[in-house]
Amino acid sequence: MMTVYLHDIPLIDAQTRFYEALDKFKLRGVLKTEIIDLNENLIGRVLAKPIWARISSPHYHASAMDGFALKSEDIQNAMPTNPVILRVDEQTIYVDTGDPVPDWANCVMPIENTEALNSDGEIVSNIRDPYAIRIRGALTPWSHIRPMGEDIVATELVLPANRKLIPVDLGAIAAAGLTQVEVVKKPIVSILPTGTELVKVGEKIKRGDIIEYNSIVLAAQIINWGGEAVRHPITKDNLDELCAQVISAAERSDLVLINAGSSAGSEDFSSRVIEKLGEVYVHGVAVRPGHPVILGMIFLENKRQVPIIGVPGYPVSAALTGEIFVKPLIHEWSGNERQGQEIIEAELTRKITSPAGDDDYVRVVTAKVGDRILAAPLSRGAGVITSMVRSDGYAIIPRGI
Amino acid sequence: MMTVYLHDIPLIDAQTRFYEALDKFKLRGVLKTEIIDLNENLIGRVLAKPIWARISSPHYHASAMDGFALKSEDIQNAMPTNPVILRVDEQTIYVDTGDPVPDWANCVMPIENTEALNSDGEIVSNIRDPYAIRIRGALTPWSHIRPMGEDIVATELVLPANRKLIPVDLGAIAAAGLTQVEVVKKPIVSILPTGTELVKVGEKIKRGDIIEYNSIVLAAQIINWGGEAVRHPITKDNLDELCAQVISAAERSDLVLINAGSSAGSEDFSSRVIEKLGEVYVHGVAVRPGHPVILGMIFLENKRQVPIIGVPGYPVSAALTGEIFVKPLIHEWSGNERQGQEIIEAELTRKITSPAGDDDYVRVVTAKVGDRILAAPLSRGAGVITSMVRSDGYAIIPRGI
Repeated sequence: MMTVYLHDIPLIDAQTRFYEALDKFKLRGVLKTEIIDLNENLIGRVLAKPIWARISSPHYHASAMDGFALKSEDIQNAMPTNPVILRVDEQTIYVDTGDPVPDWANCVMPIENTEALNSDGEIVSNIRDPYAIRIRGALTPWSHIRPMGEDIVATELVLPANRKLIPVDLGAIAAAGLTQVEVVKKPIVSILPTGTELVKVGEKIKRGDIIEYNSIVLAAQIINWGGEAVRHPITKDNLDELCAQVISAAERSDLVLINAGSSAGSEDFSSRVIEKLGEVYVHGVAVRPGHPVILGMIFLENKRQVPIIGVPGYPVSAALTGEIFVKPLIHEWSGNERQGQEIIEAELTRKITSPAGDDDYVRVVTAKVGDRILAAPLSRGAGVITSMVRSDGYAIIPRGI
Repeated sequence: MMTVYLHDIPLIDAQTRFYEALDKFKLRGVLKTEIIDLNENLIGRVLAKPIWARISSPHYHASAMDGFALKSEDIQNAMPTNPVILRVDEQTIYVDTGDPVPDWANCVMPIENTEALNSDGEIVSNIRDPYAIRIRGALTPWSHIRPMGEDIVATELVLPANRKLIPVDLGAIAAAGLTQVEVVKKPIVSILPTGTELVKVGEKIKRGDIIEYNSIVLAAQIINWGGEAVRHPITKDNLDELCAQVISAAERSDLVLINAGSSAGSEDFSSRVIEKLGEVYVHGVAVRPGHPVILGMIFLENKRQVPIIGVPGYPVSAALTGEIFVKPLIHEWSGNERQGQEIIEAELTRKITSPAGDDDYVRVVTAKVGDRILAAPLSRGAGVITSMVRSDGYAIIPRGI
């Protein structure tokens, strides 16, 4: 336990080692699915299975207008100068928009194109329930009718699997006669803040105390990326207590983040905990900030394997570790296609020197000046969270440059 | 109550009338704010007030490395060939990353640049608690120290008002010594589905029944835009019952949507309800689909005024009414700047004919073919919700073209 120098390996090698282990334990792709009622909030959830229509929509021939359902044959000779009069409830019947059209009718005359008459042939004002109507024009069959299945035909594919649901999708699913859908379950990520020096937000602080907020930022990131975050209370630097917490977290989650204790300082227990409960694949990745990351796996007694990431303590390193290692996992597990970062070409406003062996993530603010896009590098300190608040992106300087 | 033809007015005039009423009753801009704990999910919420730092971060001079705190003067002549030996706990003291640097020290020598010695001057393995350390190089004052306030200085502005919170912001707020923030309250929008022909999702349907899913789509849209949605049960077409429901909804919300009954059909009570309980400003807007929209205001007995929108019954019209009238309101009330739609230039794949007097929203699917972007118009039926599911945008054909 006397390691002083971490052995940083290139990011690509770290990812390869970690994903090989995930492959081995079949922790790739969508992990679980669940059935959710249409009345729940389903926006942004990803369909685990395609949606096939159980019923047609409309599920009957429906009037598309407020008007009178009738047989087109009855008015085929109607003209302004040669009106046709139809007896209501015998030759025609009033229908509201959406009402079923009777089987004997084949079109709907919009109410505004009819004249309501009484039994004496005089125009009356109860336009929806007169004795008869006068019509001065013909209609082709199916005029102003929404035929059964106009929108959705029973058995047709309404939505494909892997669709990320938007509001109108829920309408289409309901119209197709379903009341619930099978979607990808959000992966559960437990966050364990560790460190005797940590104090909770809102507690009185004294010199040397560090306000524990990495778990707040990580939880917010996880929710943003489509996961479910479980924040554990702060664990002191005690190996047995840490092991107990990690086991308890692993038992009810898909991924455990153990925050801080991932460097090689005197109170850095993370790698020891993981070694004791499972396996460490990577300890130290050549990215800056964030290099003392640990990638490992916990082996539970029930034979389940749960990936664990030792997240460095500096806030910028922690948030960046989330971006680099946690986000792609959550995206994969939650069925979201890996959303590539948006990449723009910009000129740096000043020279950056970069450690030769590391992939260097330099926070930048971008601005358009004339035709050029400029990127101004911000503070590089891994403790300077305000640099992330102000930045709108990263310039990634590959190692060796 | 015998109106048959709605008097459609141009969209711009409808908006002007409605917003004049909102201005009059001071229902513009952010409506309410609320205090939320940092531990709650605050992502996407909008700050009602700027955040000023209560404490500095770090709030003490902190070691930036695992190493030994010392006075730079003590090692100013140290060189590889001329090492300096310091007595631990007298001239130097071990500190972990993040530990406070004692007042008497002014720099930290990283542990990897020290040799741990016992009292006989021999190198030993307990590198963090030896008798003495040997150092072979000098340091300038403040080396490897994060000075108090490096990230945040007490009293400085951390985040401006109107900031839409992202994960790292929560870290910055916590680092600045705050435990809760004042954010814009989400506007509450009540949705009242009305119509004797409506049946709930999951209920057995017979000919003429319409599955009520507009409220599901509208609720999802509202949540997406930053509001809170309250779905009411289906109300039958009964004037007294509708009035009671509208009053009860208005009493606990910022906006009421009454769905269907907004046309002029025989069972269309919406405008009568609104006239009875308040005022109708607009009944019929020259947009397609969606023209039978109603814009009005409910006057409650407690002198509060609550805007109400009569949303047409056809699913596409309903969703589009949400986009055109509800979304800008929610954005304004929730403090989100009005997010302009993304506009692209595309060639239509076929001619569209459009009613001369209406702004026509034609759903399209776009695709890039070679250098050209093509937009293929989809079904125009206001009942065809699958056309919205398949579309990725609208071609808006202004009236008169």
